[in-house]
Amino acid sequence: MSFDPDTLRYDAAGLIPAIAQDHATGEVLMMAWMNADAVARTLETGRVTYWSRSRGAFWVKGETSGHVQTLVDLRVDCDRDCLLMRVEQVGPACHTNRRSCFYTAIRDGREVELMAPES
Amino acid sequence: MSFDPDTLRYDAAGLIPAIAQDHATGEVLMMAWMNADAVARTLETGRVTYWSRSRGAFWVKGETSGHVQTLVDLRVDCDRDCLLMRVEQVGPACHTNRRSCFYTAIRDGREVELMAPES
Repeated sequence: MSFDPDTLRYDAAGLIPAIAQDHATGEVLMMAWMNADAVARTLETGRVTYWSRSRGAFWVKGETSGHVQTLVDLRVDCDRDCLLMRVEQVGPACHTNRRSCFYTAIRDGREVELMAPES
Repeated sequence: MSFDPDTLRYDAAGLIPAIAQDHATGEVLMMAWMNADAVARTLETGRVTYWSRSRGAFWVKGETSGHVQTLVDLRVDCDRDCLLMRVEQVGPACHTNRRSCFYTAIRDGREVELMAPES
């Protein structure tokens, strides 16, 4: 059937969580939020576009940093309330300059850092 | 430093999104929610335990289905408002009996099903 972003299930703020995964390595890079318009823009442009909750504005990933995400495949989960995007990531995905935002692990009850910022 | 689940950032309902990823294949299996107690229980028991928003109760994944998730590594993102769990998944992760909840893709403007339920 033809896809309509309005058929997804958004939270009370009109947002849906979107997970970005490196399409080549499988690494989970980040999770951010989209509204229906951001989903539509991402599909239309192929440039992953989130909704920034802090700025209250569209956030075209990499627009200022150059660390763009190009959409390879968009997937929807069984409850239609979460998105998984397979992406091609230029440079680090995290604003701390690390490849992935998930750079801390809990091991033996302590937090350890798994990766350093890229130079 | 020693890890305290209360240092994570929860939403207004006291919940944090938790992504489950197959530790061996890298496949993203599902996303569900945890409160601080569910995070603590998951770390203590090694059995992934969510908070069911629909039932308002702890949800020990696989408790009734047998499709348990064993925690391999718990990761925290830069904003401390999302978790990534590397897990060992027994059987299908999805309640539809598919390996992953993300079994639908949007391709050429249409929804296509990527995997069938396991028998």
